[in-house]
Amino acid sequence: MRLIVPATEGRAVKVRSGQRVRVTDLEGGQVGDVFAFAADDVNEHLSASHTRAATSRLFPAVGEQFVTDRRRPILTLVEDTSPGRHDLLIAACDPARYRALGVPGFHASCADNLARNMAGLGLAIPTPQPVNVFMRIPVADDGRLSWLNSISRPNDSITFEAAMDCVFVVSACPQDLVGINGHEPTPLAIDLLDGRQGVSEQ
Amino acid sequence: MRLIVPATEGRAVKVRSGQRVRVTDLEGGQVGDVFAFAADDVNEHLSASHTRAATSRLFPAVGEQFVTDRRRPILTLVEDTSPGRHDLLIAACDPARYRALGVPGFHASCADNLARNMAGLGLAIPTPQPVNVFMRIPVADDGRLSWLNSISRPNDSITFEAAMDCVFVVSACPQDLVGINGHEPTPLAIDLLDGRQGVSEQ
Repeated sequence: MRLIVPATEGRAVKVRSGQRVRVTDLEGGQVGDVFAFAADDVNEHLSASHTRAATSRLFPAVGEQFVTDRRRPILTLVEDTSPGRHDLLIAACDPARYRALGVPGFHASCADNLARNMAGLGLAIPTPQPVNVFMRIPVADDGRLSWLNSISRPNDSITFEAAMDCVFVVSACPQDLVGINGHEPTPLAIDLLDGRQGVSEQ
Repeated sequence: MRLIVPATEGRAVKVRSGQRVRVTDLEGGQVGDVFAFAADDVNEHLSASHTRAATSRLFPAVGEQFVTDRRRPILTLVEDTSPGRHDLLIAACDPARYRALGVPGFHASCADNLARNMAGLGLAIPTPQPVNVFMRIPVADDGRLSWLNSISRPNDSITFEAAMDCVFVVSACPQDLVGINGHEPTPLAIDLLDGRQGVSEQ
């Protein structure tokens, strides 16, 4: 079953342990901010810093797992058809980020998209650091980070298997002032691969 | 005014905006987990992922600032006499980490040290990702992380200037099963450099 994540918006799905969920970059060059929360207690969330401690990598390799802030596996990275450039260093964009970039009024953001979708499920949480799929932030030898445009191609995808029942949220990043999306946000898709679980659309 | 942080323990101090606070590695080779919280609302905390977005570096350079999860500057890195190896990638050690490393019973941890000191101030917060001063986690070209022993020398120090009134917590990391402290935890010191503000010892 497929759920479209319109450009600049977010969507949430509930995923059962053992079920696979795929994020597809429909048009190419689009970053997705992915969040995952334990279904039975959304205070437990996928954590970048605990995942790096578990994998000793900036981003897990295929076959490795993302863990929560309680060090429990939550998602396994099972397939990646993209060039493999993903980010686990950068915070979700938010209203403060766009104000700092000079936007005077409203601008859609991944943090707002997350909050809105969680609220739609009756849940309220602070914004964890996301898994930024298809986001290209290379690290130079001296530790400098570069913000480059995504190089995923149309229909490239990354697939996860849930290691626990979880709430899985994807925001099609609205960033159009920094070049990570080529200044043109486009949609993503979420596919639940075995259809055992309904989709909660917000 | 100097406050000793005994090996494997933590201490908290309140630091006023504009005041400087120094962390000294008394014997050398010791990692310190540093946390900072806005004094007027400890739900706002120094955030690694927002700091990386602000500085475009894995770790700020001298003169650059750490920011909170609301993207407000909280600490400026003003001086560093150490070889400059610090970490902003790895979660604080906690009971789950030591259980996974095979410790059957109690083991001191930076997360517990933080919680105990915040509780001593009447405060309760989830554990943010720390600033791991003197911790050496180099990143290889392929994204792999190595866990190396600290190379700070006796009396090396790193100094911050508070950009807002904050609660500043240092844990002398108790990790003795992974080699980051050379398997021998030792004490640190916290110096408040202008003495305008009392120290809250927990």
